[in-house]
Amino acid sequence: MTDQNINLRVPGPTPVPEEVARAGARPMVNHRGPEFAAVMSEVVEGLKPFFGTTSDPLLLTCSGTGGLEAAIVNMLSPGDEVLSVTGGVFGDRFADIAQAFGATVRRLQSDWGTASSPIAVADALQAHPGVKAVLLTHNETSTGVTNDVLSLVEAVRRDALPDRLVLVDGVSSIGALPFSQDGWDVDVAITGSQKAWMSPPGLTMIGVSERAWDEHARATMPRFYLDFSKARKNADKRTTPFTPAVGVVRALQQALQLMSAEGLESIFARHRRIGERLREGVGGLGLELFAEPSAASDTVTAVRVPAGTDASRLIGGMRKRGVVVASGQEWLKGAIFRVGHMGFVDDQDIDLVLAALRGAMAEELLEKAV
Amino acid sequence: MTDQNINLRVPGPTPVPEEVARAGARPMVNHRGPEFAAVMSEVVEGLKPFFGTTSDPLLLTCSGTGGLEAAIVNMLSPGDEVLSVTGGVFGDRFADIAQAFGATVRRLQSDWGTASSPIAVADALQAHPGVKAVLLTHNETSTGVTNDVLSLVEAVRRDALPDRLVLVDGVSSIGALPFSQDGWDVDVAITGSQKAWMSPPGLTMIGVSERAWDEHARATMPRFYLDFSKARKNADKRTTPFTPAVGVVRALQQALQLMSAEGLESIFARHRRIGERLREGVGGLGLELFAEPSAASDTVTAVRVPAGTDASRLIGGMRKRGVVVASGQEWLKGAIFRVGHMGFVDDQDIDLVLAALRGAMAEELLEKAV
Repeated sequence: MTDQNINLRVPGPTPVPEEVARAGARPMVNHRGPEFAAVMSEVVEGLKPFFGTTSDPLLLTCSGTGGLEAAIVNMLSPGDEVLSVTGGVFGDRFADIAQAFGATVRRLQSDWGTASSPIAVADALQAHPGVKAVLLTHNETSTGVTNDVLSLVEAVRRDALPDRLVLVDGVSSIGALPFSQDGWDVDVAITGSQKAWMSPPGLTMIGVSERAWDEHARATMPRFYLDFSKARKNADKRTTPFTPAVGVVRALQQALQLMSAEGLESIFARHRRIGERLREGVGGLGLELFAEPSAASDTVTAVRVPAGTDASRLIGGMRKRGVVVASGQEWLKGAIFRVGHMGFVDDQDIDLVLAALRGAMAEELLEKAV
Repeated sequence: MTDQNINLRVPGPTPVPEEVARAGARPMVNHRGPEFAAVMSEVVEGLKPFFGTTSDPLLLTCSGTGGLEAAIVNMLSPGDEVLSVTGGVFGDRFADIAQAFGATVRRLQSDWGTASSPIAVADALQAHPGVKAVLLTHNETSTGVTNDVLSLVEAVRRDALPDRLVLVDGVSSIGALPFSQDGWDVDVAITGSQKAWMSPPGLTMIGVSERAWDEHARATMPRFYLDFSKARKNADKRTTPFTPAVGVVRALQQALQLMSAEGLESIFARHRRIGERLREGVGGLGLELFAEPSAASDTVTAVRVPAGTDASRLIGGMRKRGVVVASGQEWLKGAIFRVGHMGFVDDQDIDLVLAALRGAMAEELLEKAV
């Protein structure tokens, strides 16, 4: 099978529409010249409605994890106390980064598959009143859970500490799920080009609040390549401090045009509809979801592998049928598989996933019957 | 003017051949799947002859500056003494990164436009015997100077300190100029996809010696996204710890096929020939080179702007004629312009540069005459 006819349904990188791929492959330009400046202007403007912010998101050339690292090193100083609100691989990773750079990390773990609890956050902050920053995950890609960021931020802001920061991993949510950085009072929001943005990987986009810029000026964790000040200084001239992934930025420009044409509300509605369609279809096949229903994500679905079924064989069976899904991570390896449905995805893609799943399951049952 | 007919002659990003751009735009694949593993295997193998190493270069998704930062944070501990051998913007940047992460940096400055001196390096190391790592720039992109890395490394190794490291910025050299990481005993060598490799920006490739891996295990600077251990552990499975710039890796795969077909020696000879052609042509127009002739780079040429001529007008005049060159950086802004001639470049491109330069100069003279 060639990659041309694969239905790529991992939770990133996601499929790239042909016109987006073509835009990314246009003849190279100087990242210090007027062509790139125009592209960058359009991209920065195009991102704002999806971030729900009036400020300019920054563009950094790295993966989403680089974006999480950027949030940490630009906002914190070694020794700062951080509350990590986590319920999966990516929440844990955010905390691990903070720890690697010298923060004192308090971990508030929710059971994987369940949403983070605002009450637990409020309690944790009462127990640790010195917390400088709270790390949230909007959409936990490893478990298929979407957290209620607004309620979590409200729990954080109850203490009315004016310089406490909220850093939100929105890597697999922003652009597909409603997000309101300004409205929800989020200080740093991170996403990645290869998720909801139907663009190739290589770029992280980061929204930064006024409060965050103030704290950034005081933050002393070491940084250079990911430094927000350097990025902002250059962004004011519509360029980047270091050579950006020019092709990815241009792909994103094209993707944002498609997204703008579809419209925010339509995009959000499509993701809701498709998430539901997949969950219903999975249930119809007698399979269980990993996430608690009230927190099920509309961009990533984690499905429990039925008892007695080998996960890698099931995933392989779907692959044979042209659908590429992802395995579980860490202790969930073997226990779940994950379907990405963000960005360039429609109802038909979901039906193809369900058909492949049905086929792979039938094959497994037959094998066992023999 | 559209970018389709621009002769992009900045020292990176460099023009991308159509088949390379097309390869980078192929339908997206899972970076944890067999398609990407095959691509990554081929890329890692294809890089080795150009690095002059038998070990596997690492791939990180970031610009060359990210690669320089990776070399620093993976090899050093805060407080380590570092000798920065610099003669331009990028040598200084390498030193600045080391300083930002807590190294004690001794700066050995050569006059910009001149090569770094092995004798000065030996003297500096006698004065600072505790130096843990020496930072070298193979090709200084800001001045058009190529340094003699072998002689500089020999000066470093005279002291026979078994754990002293040599980190080489080869961002604008490796792939176009002869390089021998193993033969020259270089510990970390860094390059970037958008330079000699005629690929889009977004990827840094880093060669790591056995000595470097040993020291890496002891190095305590904070790191996460750029961590070599994470990269190696995943590279063993032919993937990357975090979502890579998949499109850029595939473009690089195609570019390496072209480079392998042309052959190392032919590529090096082409760059030598073209460098000379440009330098001769520039001299023929009565202009002076910024670099001392014995150290003139075969990938980047810095040309002095004639007295009384406005650099930005001259650069604008060339741009009007379809040739995009770069201005000088920092105190060289206004004093020089820079022409990139690495990667996808042939004799005709150089002739077009010279024709545009001649035209722009004539226009300036006419303006003055009026």
